[in-house]
Amino acid sequence: AMGFSTKNAYFRFGPHVKEARARRQPIVALETVVVAFGLPRPANLQVAHEMEETIRAEGVVPATIGLLDGQIVVGLTPAELERFAGDEGVRKVSRRDLPIALARRQIGATTVATTVWAAARAGIRVVATGGIGGVHRGAPFDVSNDLPTLATEPVLVVCAGPKAILDLRATREWLETHGIPILGWGMETMPAFYSASSGLPVDARVDSAEEAAAIARVHWTLGGKGILVTVPPPADFALPRERLETILEEAMAEAERAGVQGWALTPFLLARVAERTGGESVALNRALLIENARIAARIARALEA
Amino acid sequence: AMGFSTKNAYFRFGPHVKEARARRQPIVALETVVVAFGLPRPANLQVAHEMEETIRAEGVVPATIGLLDGQIVVGLTPAELERFAGDEGVRKVSRRDLPIALARRQIGATTVATTVWAAARAGIRVVATGGIGGVHRGAPFDVSNDLPTLATEPVLVVCAGPKAILDLRATREWLETHGIPILGWGMETMPAFYSASSGLPVDARVDSAEEAAAIARVHWTLGGKGILVTVPPPADFALPRERLETILEEAMAEAERAGVQGWALTPFLLARVAERTGGESVALNRALLIENARIAARIARALEA
Amino acid sequence: AMGFSTKNAYFRFGPHVKEARARRQPIVALETVVVAFGLPRPANLQVAHEMEETIRAEGVVPATIGLLDGQIVVGLTPAELERFAGDEGVRKVSRRDLPIALARRQIGATTVATTVWAAARAGIRVVATGGIGGVHRGAPFDVSNDLPTLATEPVLVVCAGPKAILDLRATREWLETHGIPILGWGMETMPAFYSASSGLPVDARVDSAEEAAAIARVHWTLGGKGILVTVPPPADFALPRERLETILEEAMAEAERAGVQGWALTPFLLARVAERTGGESVALNRALLIENARIAARIARALEA
Ligand SMILES: [Mn+2]
Ligand SMILES: [Mn+2]
Ligand SMILES: [Mn+2]
Repeated sequence: AMGFSTKNAYFRFGPHVKEARARRQPIVALETVVVAFGLPRPANLQVAHEMEETIRAEGVVPATIGLLDGQIVVGLTPAELERFAGDEGVRKVSRRDLPIALARRQIGATTVATTVWAAARAGIRVVATGGIGGVHRGAPFDVSNDLPTLATEPVLVVCAGPKAILDLRATREWLETHGIPILGWGMETMPAFYSASSGLPVDARVDSAEEAAAIARVHWTLGGKGILVTVPPPADFALPRERLETILEEAMAEAERAGVQGWALTPFLLARVAERTGGESVALNRALLIENARIAARIARALEA
Repeated sequence: AMGFSTKNAYFRFGPHVKEARARRQPIVALETVVVAFGLPRPANLQVAHEMEETIRAEGVVPATIGLLDGQIVVGLTPAELERFAGDEGVRKVSRRDLPIALARRQIGATTVATTVWAAARAGIRVVATGGIGGVHRGAPFDVSNDLPTLATEPVLVVCAGPKAILDLRATREWLETHGIPILGWGMETMPAFYSASSGLPVDARVDSAEEAAAIARVHWTLGGKGILVTVPPPADFALPRERLETILEEAMAEAERAGVQGWALTPFLLARVAERTGGESVALNRALLIENARIAARIARALEA
Repeated sequence: AMGFSTKNAYFRFGPHVKEARARRQPIVALETVVVAFGLPRPANLQVAHEMEETIRAEGVVPATIGLLDGQIVVGLTPAELERFAGDEGVRKVSRRDLPIALARRQIGATTVATTVWAAARAGIRVVATGGIGGVHRGAPFDVSNDLPTLATEPVLVVCAGPKAILDLRATREWLETHGIPILGWGMETMPAFYSASSGLPVDARVDSAEEAAAIARVHWTLGGKGILVTVPPPADFALPRERLETILEEAMAEAERAGVQGWALTPFLLARVAERTGGESVALNRALLIENARIAARIARALEA
């Protein structure tokens, strides 16, 4: 996969990322779907900036990724990033959308999958995000493009686990099936995005960035691909799992009655959760995105050491 | 995957394909399962010839693929093709059958998967077919070998969508999971083989061979693999989706009562549909195979431009 | 995959395997999960030795694989093997556990997946085992790491089919989906571990090591990956399929009532089967492991011829 290079017309590096690459500084990649679709305005742009600042404060360079004018930009400038935060015409770009959005020069917000894929091609080994995709609940058997991408790209993703609207147990099994290690940040169990624990075991608890980096290094030396570091949401913001499950079940029943499915389901459910928690879920999302950015930066630094 | 070459004893090129490769002419590959198992005699051989003629009329070279005498023949001659149309001893060759049929020197009709795989090894980027395989309806979770092959081989397949006896929604999700773009030929939705639309959205509508070729080129430059161009069946022949669903449901209930499953199910259902539609489904199949061959040839030409 | 080499600090070869590699002698790899978790003491260590002796009696070198002191040891010595047979602290090492167990220098028993992966890296093409993993019965859709590993590593595995506690039909479909040929040793159907036949067809019956080797050679020349040779359990020890199904269904119901799931389920079910068959299942397991080692050795020899 890595024989492929970014030396083609479809990749462009932002000035700060170009410099970081020349100086071999640690870099953390960030997605743009969270900016374009994951948070209400104006929190979306604020959080994007706060994540970048948090990474810089750790001595690491942020590389927010998005599609502009027929190119994959690795390291959007603040002015470029703004276009993702307010533009109605932004396309959500999963990997199958990539050639379409590039050929048509659309503004494209990159999913975790597309971000991880682009990061791998750019030699960036660490990505920070909120929740990754996974196996959807119910029928048909529907798996996020994030999972096969983790199975093929040598990238460490710091997250709060799979999005809680998914089938967490099935997602955990999928990761096991495909040899993707799940590390728990100070925890023996995988978080459930909104709550500290899903009740499902991780493969190993780690208590420092160095410990995570040591395992990732062995994984990649042996040809391993994706690896997850799952971080429980900051305790002050976490929501009780039972309450969330009730809200989710109601929202899913509502979605079914309204015929909402496929692409439309995830944003529908997230909006319902935000509504029913009186915005608490938005505050939580914000807190965990910044926390995950910080931990990702520390791991990126430990990997360079 | 492409590091592998066809310079081994198991590949043989027909004279017309050898010439086309030397002259760098555009080539479209065709499968042989449709000849051996997909259509009644004598329509099967007639349609195979018509598809080849249609491709030639566009200035493109057809390469019908099949196994003969322990070799994968890329570009069967008319005399060779006849052996697939009437011989009772032909083996249906999915990828797992490939080493067996070659080692035992069996006559082997290649599925879409095996054809796509062989085409990729021979440097042929476009395949035309009727309907591709996909995710089967019901339990157990059963996925055609066509799908993982599309996920790993850089080939564009022109088809009328997945066979309508399949779970189209699950198949569509599988393609999304694995990053395979679905383009709609003059349509916003995916066809359902017998009918113009499945109701499921494509990733992009294209209205010309050049548009499809432009997207495929970006896809492959970025290391992308399979890409589908789904073409609605010619309007004069299309069957109403509701009528088809009724016929299919009855045929599936019948198959269950009779204990027909696994390999035997697809031909059983197709035969029932042909019977219940008084041969209309055969006329439709023929019309769409020729139409797909024509569009595939135009895209192959556009890719060379 | 094979571009990767074993010339790194994480691989160590036992003296007998080092010699065999230098002399280009045929080698059969063996797993250690069966020693650490698959059989009661002291049968576990006895069987491990008998398998090695059986392989040697065929003029082939056994390479039992396990993790010790931060290394993957290919070819454990008798003294090293003993540590897997009695130590309470042994970790079951699926591929996602590999970097963790190595980084933490844990004693690690390798699953079929990890053994096949390590064998492929060491250039060993044949593995002998009892039953492979597969698709689990029931929900969620849960697939053993053995299956994707067979889909990516060019190794021939001799086994008595997938473990009978699995969904054999779904497992068979999975193998077909991913192009993995299933050969039946003197049989037209796949065995069901405890019983001679699952009722599910194999892709080809083979009646000699040479026949299996010939197909494997074509498979690998064409870039194929895993291939299974399924051997029915020795007739004197086989248990009737209906009796087994009854025992398994009771045991599964019991597991559900007791909340046993995930990792804990397989050993729980195997223990119940051993109990309910008054040890007959242990005698069977032993007999088939030795028989499979013998056939694997003959195929390894035929592959060198
Ligand atoms: Mn599992
Ligand atoms: Mn999906
Ligand atoms: Mn199948």
